[in-house]
Order: sequence, then structure tokens, then C-alpha cells
Amino acid sequence: MKKIAVILSGSGVFDGTEIHEAVLSLLAIEQEGASWHCFAPNMDQHHVINHLTGEEMAESRNVLIEAARIARGQIADLATLDPSHYDALLIPGGFGAAKNLSTFAFKGPDCAVHPEVKRVCQQFAEEEKPAGYLCIAPAMIPLIYGPGAKGTIGTDPDTAKAFNQMGGEHIKCPVSDYVLDQKRRLLTTPAYMLAGSISEAAEGINKLVKELVKIA
Amino acid sequence: MKKIAVILSGSGVFDGTEIHEAVLSLLAIEQEGASWHCFAPNMDQHHVINHLTGEEMAESRNVLIEAARIARGQIADLATLDPSHYDALLIPGGFGAAKNLSTFAFKGPDCAVHPEVKRVCQQFAEEEKPAGYLCIAPAMIPLIYGPGAKGTIGTDPDTAKAFNQMGGEHIKCPVSDYVLDQKRRLLTTPAYMLAGSISEAAEGINKLVKELVKIA
Repeated sequence: MKKIAVILSGSGVFDGTEIHEAVLSLLAIEQEGASWHCFAPNMDQHHVINHLTGEEMAESRNVLIEAARIARGQIADLATLDPSHYDALLIPGGFGAAKNLSTFAFKGPDCAVHPEVKRVCQQFAEEEKPAGYLCIAPAMIPLIYGPGAKGTIGTDPDTAKAFNQMGGEHIKCPVSDYVLDQKRRLLTTPAYMLAGSISEAAEGINKLVKELVKIA
Repeated sequence: MKKIAVILSGSGVFDGTEIHEAVLSLLAIEQEGASWHCFAPNMDQHHVINHLTGEEMAESRNVLIEAARIARGQIADLATLDPSHYDALLIPGGFGAAKNLSTFAFKGPDCAVHPEVKRVCQQFAEEEKPAGYLCIAPAMIPLIYGPGAKGTIGTDPDTAKAFNQMGGEHIKCPVSDYVLDQKRRLLTTPAYMLAGSISEAAEGINKLVKELVKIA
């Protein structure tokens, strides 16, 4: 059975992993006959957002502990992730990818990727294992794969521009589809960058995961 | 389009709504051509559990605010839920149903259902609108529907015994199926009371939601 490592960044679209994208991904991985293995960095979230009001809350939460909610406790510290033990990588979106795994939400094209995230993602790339990035997570791709890496965040012009400024090659893509950079075995889909419903997000995610598992 | 009210109880299996069950439910509702409308009680959670260690954390969280993470902010205070505006009710499981929506986790057959939850659920029953209860949420059924109501929590003997002690009629059911109390238009499925994976949970949930939307 192929083993897919999944990196989470908290639990909730505004300060962590987008929950629907994560659950749809885990379901699709199972339905394609592979197994999922969740990891998250053991660090404080950038901040905590009240998902009812959108306002910041005066408290702190740990990315790994919150991500464990999505994984029902079946999750490990990202520091323990050895890519040589897995067949592919998947990173769902949500602001956690742009606030915790990287600083894209605050610094745009001048952002940095969390060192532990970068180490892991680059090792998957170096071992030529396929990787799928959903929603806003592809914003990290140029810093992981270097110049020329192809990917999509859907159609948002500012985000696409930043992706290109960082050295990537942005490709427009509808929510129902995904983009494949064949050379890099790299898959991206817009998910909630464009989706207006769970079932819309599911369409592109299911197609991406099917291909990810197939080529893993 | 049929409108399905969904009651959440937080965000995370050990102190709130089981996240997979909730997301699978919302997806299934959309895929059956209906719309979902989330609600949660505006109250403190019974407690907060660290989902990595299983230990209680020294903090408090609000059920509605945390449930908003699952609903991407598209959620309202349960106090505003008027069942006459909806066609059916769905309550996913997770310990939140037994710790926040009711006290079943602590008092077993001597438990109580939160007054606002009871008001809403009983109105759906009185209006003869169908309702689906997943996982441990059916533990509330005898207190809502009164003696003789049929339902399942799977096969756990202690929980089944408590269900019967409260006046219900427990029916064993595999995770892949659901139980229908035709007279009461009441549907139940074990979900993570039995499921060993998301795809297992999805099987029964998808069947239940399909029937729920059909008869709504």
C-alpha cells in the first residue's frame, strides 16, 4: 500500500489547515487504496482567529496540537518525518499554509518557508516523489522547487503575480481540475481559492489525489 | 432545494463534533442536492482536550466559535434555529454530542439534553420532519422522542444498554448501514462508534444522508 505523508498547519481555514480540504484529501487517499500519515510542525500558530467573527483572539495555540483534531490524534511532529519512508506528499490549504508553514500571508513574494517544512518538501522533491499542494499551499512551491516550477492557485491575479515573482510559472486552473508539472511530479489544485462549496472543492481534490497516488 | 439544519457541538472528536463526520455529512447533503445550514449552542465547551495527548487543557473554548471552524464561519447560534424553516435535521457525533449537547458522557442513562438542543430537536419531531443522528448523538434520542424510539450506536453493549434504559429500543447495526425508525422518520448510523477509517464512516453516513434528503 502506498504511503502518503500529509502536512497539516492547524485546524481551521483562517489560522490553520482548511478542514474540508484536509478531510476530503484523507478520504480520497483511502479511496485510492493508499494510506495517510499526518504531520504538523510543533510550534505556536501565528495567531488564533475567531472563525465566527474573523477577529483575532487573545490566546495562543500549538499547530501540532490543533492539527491533531483533524487527524483524530493520529499525527506526529513534522520533525520526525523522514520522506524516504513515504511515497508521496500532500499539503492541504487554509491560511495555516501561508501563516504557519510559511509567511506568504504577510510578506507575499518576499516570504519564507518554515525551515522544517522546507527540509521535508525539498527532500520529497530530491527523491523525485510526487507532491500535491492545494489551495494557497502552492505559494510555497517556488521556494521549494526553484525557478520554473509550474503550479496553480486558481485565478487570483495578485497571488498568481506573487507566484511568478518568486520564480514560479503560474497556470490558471478551474476548481474542478488540477495542474501537473510533469518534470517535477508536482500537482496543484485551487480548492477553496475558488470553490464555493465542499462538493466543488472535492472535484479537483479527488482528481489530484487520484493522479498523485497513481504516480506515487 | 431542501434545507438541512446541522447541529454542531465544537470542533474535534474528543471535546466537540467529530470533524470527519461533519465534513462527510455536509458533502453528502450537497451531493444529494440539498443545502446545509449549521448551528451550534453559544456556550462554553464542557472542557478542552489536547487531541495529541488526550489530556485536558487548562483553558476554555466556546462551542459556537469552535464549531465555526468546521463551517468556515457559515454558522449561527442554535437559539436562532426555527425548525419550521428547515426540511430535516442532522447531528454528527463526536464527544461534543455527549459532553456539550448532552451530559451522556458523564451521567449515562441519567443524562440530560441541553434545553435549547431539546427544544429544537423536539420541534423537528413534532413537525414530523426527518432527523439523522450519527455516532454517539443517538444517545439523546430517548430523551427527545420518548419511549420506544429505535436507533443505533453500533454494537457497544454498555452504550446500547444505556439507550434501552432511557426507554429507547437499540438495534445493532454495522458501520456500513443505518437504522430507520419509520414511524418517527428517525435515522441513525454508528459512524466512528465503529468506523476504523474515514472511508468506513463515509459508507453509512452517505446512505443515511441520501435517505434523509429523500424523505425530507
